[in-house]
Amino acid sequence: MTGGRIFPPPPTIPESDAVSADEWGFADTSFTVNAAGAITVTGNRYPGLSGQVLPNLLPWFRTVVGIDFPIEDEHRGSYPPPVAEPKPAEDFLAEVKRILDPDQISTKAEIRLRHGHGHTVSEINAVRTTGFPRVPDYVVFPNDEDQVAALVEAAAESGVVLMPYGGGTNVTEALRCLTCEERPIVSVDMSRMNRIEWIDPVNRMAKIQAGAAGRMIQSQLAEYGLTMGHEPDSVELSTLGGWIATNASGMKKNQYGNIEDILLDVTVISAAGKLERAQVAPRESIGLDPKVWMIGSEGSLGIVTSAVVKLFPLPEEQRYGSIIFKTFEEGLAFMYDLAQEEKPPASVRLVDNLQFQFGQALKPAGRGLKKLKSRAEKWLVTGPLGFDPGKMVAVTLVFEGTRADVEQEEKRVYVLAARHRGRKGGAENGRRGYMLTFGIAYIRDFVLRHHILGESFETSVPWSQAQELIDRVKRRIYEAHEKRKLPGRPFVSCRVTQLYETGCCVYFYMAFYSKGVSDPIADYHEIEAEARAEVIAAGGSISHHHGVGKLRLPFLKDIMSPAMIAWRDKMKAALDPQGIFAAQLPLTDHQSAAVTR
Amino acid sequence: MTGGRIFPPPPTIPESDAVSADEWGFADTSFTVNAAGAITVTGNRYPGLSGQVLPNLLPWFRTVVGIDFPIEDEHRGSYPPPVAEPKPAEDFLAEVKRILDPDQISTKAEIRLRHGHGHTVSEINAVRTTGFPRVPDYVVFPNDEDQVAALVEAAAESGVVLMPYGGGTNVTEALRCLTCEERPIVSVDMSRMNRIEWIDPVNRMAKIQAGAAGRMIQSQLAEYGLTMGHEPDSVELSTLGGWIATNASGMKKNQYGNIEDILLDVTVISAAGKLERAQVAPRESIGLDPKVWMIGSEGSLGIVTSAVVKLFPLPEEQRYGSIIFKTFEEGLAFMYDLAQEEKPPASVRLVDNLQFQFGQALKPAGRGLKKLKSRAEKWLVTGPLGFDPGKMVAVTLVFEGTRADVEQEEKRVYVLAARHRGRKGGAENGRRGYMLTFGIAYIRDFVLRHHILGESFETSVPWSQAQELIDRVKRRIYEAHEKRKLPGRPFVSCRVTQLYETGCCVYFYMAFYSKGVSDPIADYHEIEAEARAEVIAAGGSISHHHGVGKLRLPFLKDIMSPAMIAWRDKMKAALDPQGIFAAQLPLTDHQSAAVTR
Repeated sequence: MTGGRIFPPPPTIPESDAVSADEWGFADTSFTVNAAGAITVTGNRYPGLSGQVLPNLLPWFRTVVGIDFPIEDEHRGSYPPPVAEPKPAEDFLAEVKRILDPDQISTKAEIRLRHGHGHTVSEINAVRTTGFPRVPDYVVFPNDEDQVAALVEAAAESGVVLMPYGGGTNVTEALRCLTCEERPIVSVDMSRMNRIEWIDPVNRMAKIQAGAAGRMIQSQLAEYGLTMGHEPDSVELSTLGGWIATNASGMKKNQYGNIEDILLDVTVISAAGKLERAQVAPRESIGLDPKVWMIGSEGSLGIVTSAVVKLFPLPEEQRYGSIIFKTFEEGLAFMYDLAQEEKPPASVRLVDNLQFQFGQALKPAGRGLKKLKSRAEKWLVTGPLGFDPGKMVAVTLVFEGTRADVEQEEKRVYVLAARHRGRKGGAENGRRGYMLTFGIAYIRDFVLRHHILGESFETSVPWSQAQELIDRVKRRIYEAHEKRKLPGRPFVSCRVTQLYETGCCVYFYMAFYSKGVSDPIADYHEIEAEARAEVIAAGGSISHHHGVGKLRLPFLKDIMSPAMIAWRDKMKAALDPQGIFAAQLPLTDHQSAAVTR
Repeated sequence: MTGGRIFPPPPTIPESDAVSADEWGFADTSFTVNAAGAITVTGNRYPGLSGQVLPNLLPWFRTVVGIDFPIEDEHRGSYPPPVAEPKPAEDFLAEVKRILDPDQISTKAEIRLRHGHGHTVSEINAVRTTGFPRVPDYVVFPNDEDQVAALVEAAAESGVVLMPYGGGTNVTEALRCLTCEERPIVSVDMSRMNRIEWIDPVNRMAKIQAGAAGRMIQSQLAEYGLTMGHEPDSVELSTLGGWIATNASGMKKNQYGNIEDILLDVTVISAAGKLERAQVAPRESIGLDPKVWMIGSEGSLGIVTSAVVKLFPLPEEQRYGSIIFKTFEEGLAFMYDLAQEEKPPASVRLVDNLQFQFGQALKPAGRGLKKLKSRAEKWLVTGPLGFDPGKMVAVTLVFEGTRADVEQEEKRVYVLAARHRGRKGGAENGRRGYMLTFGIAYIRDFVLRHHILGESFETSVPWSQAQELIDRVKRRIYEAHEKRKLPGRPFVSCRVTQLYETGCCVYFYMAFYSKGVSDPIADYHEIEAEARAEVIAAGGSISHHHGVGKLRLPFLKDIMSPAMIAWRDKMKAALDPQGIFAAQLPLTDHQSAAVTR
């Protein structure tokens, strides 16, 4: 039990990890149409998806959106869009040039553009077409905490605004620059602060810099047999600082906890100076605790430079699994019982019928014996076993732990599933379901090129209200789509992605064909806003893990009393009186969301 | 899975639950000396302790403190002490009399006295002797949230200070009234707001008023087969509001979590109005979240009126257990491995040798076969098995869960114990160890009557530093005791009460004989301050769960950077600009602790 810290070398990010400028994710991966007119996936990053031809996807998608859209009709966009000249900031730049090397300051249009958006459909659409009314004027790349502190000081003295930038993966328009902001905006890109400063294997902690991306943290810790266990859907690209700022949730939270459970300490450069602690406690009671104020602070209180997090041993055993149910209701009842009666496996996700079909449609063309086996299974399930392909749903499972624990969990889960007429669907389907999480983000930008606007949104809700919330939100989207006389039918699907004793997280996907519509982005956001209003009316939260950003600010008043909102504003004003950290400025101005469009 | 709330009737608190005015706990229970000169325990509240004669306790204690003190030499105290007249507060009272009934306002000296202290040794000593330089001027007993809101409004308008009062069980001097406070101080006693407003069994939540005491919450929820699972040592008397305010930890947190894991929502009357939420989410990401600011706020930001908490089904099976180890080091290594390799049982606590002896000394006189069996076991253990009575330690265990889970946990725990030469010590010893938690608080006030000052303090520390911290703190106390030439020897003992992956909570007991010492309370606090300094130097936290109060304010600067402390002050000033909630005023004035003596 005697300690000793490990000091890992800095990470080496492979060149092949280059990211796309105008789409989600890595440049090596893209859904595209091959010469034969079928959809295929480039690269070799995602097993089971990359390099595959997906013959069923296009026909299926055409059926779902009710439009037989021609695959040749591809809107490639006009990236890069125009970007305005940076606002002058002479005093700030003079100071910054004394602190940073020239390669740590950028005014390049494309770099500034990238730092002014996340990945909502309207942002990506803007990137591919008209651009933004405002983007950061400067982007700086600090190497260490002292440089961040110097930047904050320079900002305070010269009256510029700082916006911390992590992986740029948010879907809350947190990075959108408001046109009403008259001061120069400086994006503080944390990507060079990506080191694991130390690992303490005995006490199972690590101090990690805020700009470290999830995949790099994973691979570096794995070299020492350790993991943070935190896997949000964006884990490849999102950063530790971003996870703290957004109050992130990982897919395996049943095993490892959400970010608030994993975070032990945080170092912050604030307007008042450096927030740091002399020691790290496993848990403590110290009165008002600024550490927890930073969780979910969305860049508004200061810049997280590093954090101490819990570690876990890499699991001895990892197994995937899947279960099919005849109806969503039965699947949901299984999820409820699982949350009540057992320690659920690391990850458990229930997809509705449409998403189950989506998963089937994404399967590559089968071959030989495998194809025969798959057909036989399909015949059995939809024939004698009575599963209706238009109603059945699936649960995907990831088990992690010791071999003995995993085996026991598996047994219990399948016994429980049988109580709800669930049938084991095999490990391969489970693995595919989990892996598709990473692939699905690329699909959104592929269909966007074919005039289909799509995006996800999520909520959390007590169990007893979950089914009604899902029904209401789906119905509301159908109605809103119809009311606007949009072409075809909307794609609306959901999955239950997280279990708690008291409720669950529901993740929706919504998409519609938009060619010929005069302002489809406006329609999209109006429908999304209607859906969110329905979510809240049905007892759901503003967000389970995406956060508020600028997109959901207008809904705060629907969930918080005026005094609670006043507290947020007072706190922001007290801790950042000059408004240096302006990602969320005006913090709770309900008009601000409109400003961004 | 369809919902439905239960609305339980208000609790009926039995008359037998009357509490002592000048000692810890219920009036029916007290350690006392019988006619034969032996120590006995009154009442019948605590099985295994109440009604018993404890022949071994006095001789053992005399040996430990190194003073053969006469049991007849009892200092009964002079309760009630003098209490100054209340400061006039005409405007406030005029307003309050319109809101509250006459029986909801008290100026009685003894009631005001009780609301001006917790249970530190210096506070109880003051209650029994000289009293306090300042106590609350008025005590009010609101019946509902609206009355609390009206009180806060009246306080704001008339310039009085409000201090919320729950169970009065704190050991941080949080309730001490500062003489530098010139305004009238009003204690807001929450005891009439003690209802469970609703129980939602499907979603496993309950909304409970802040003044509800732990034992009442337990017994009421148990009627519906449910529990909060939160059992701090003070659970009999402490309240939900107090748990939130102090960031409390329960003995069974391995099973149910600490208060921050259990709390889903909180309603607060603040200077800015009522903080409340439209719905309860299982987990959410809503940006800056005032709910979490209230955890650990120690009465400084507003008055918690109710909270929504998680519930759990009452465990199907509950079993006690114990293990003896040959050395503390081996016991600690077992605790470490347990935290690393397994889901630990609901409660696991390691007591050092002195506390193990204490447990033995507290055993009632044995009789017949039981006595013989106990003697035979003792012979076996200390004879052929080689356990040294002067070195051996014990772990007490509480297992809760399904029968199958408990059985499996038991097996794993005992296998792991064997790896560290641990030997099963039987369920009865485990049960006694757990129950003694409740009894031990009474002993402190018994020995106080015999001129022995004693108290506990606690910390949390990473595993690799735990042993060194314990050794250093014990040594420091011995040295400090010797330096002051205090009579006899100090009693210094510890237990490890909570496990985390990254570290543990260490709970110390310290006592010394003080007759003939000129200012023993001053000595006590100087030694305690030295011990705390040593804790921090050895890498421990200010507190794992007791909190800061006024007692540990001077140490904040040792664990937080100046900017972090500035944040606390700015936050307090922003959310309570008039300083209405003054329990912690001046919030981080490092001189304030001295003011209280």
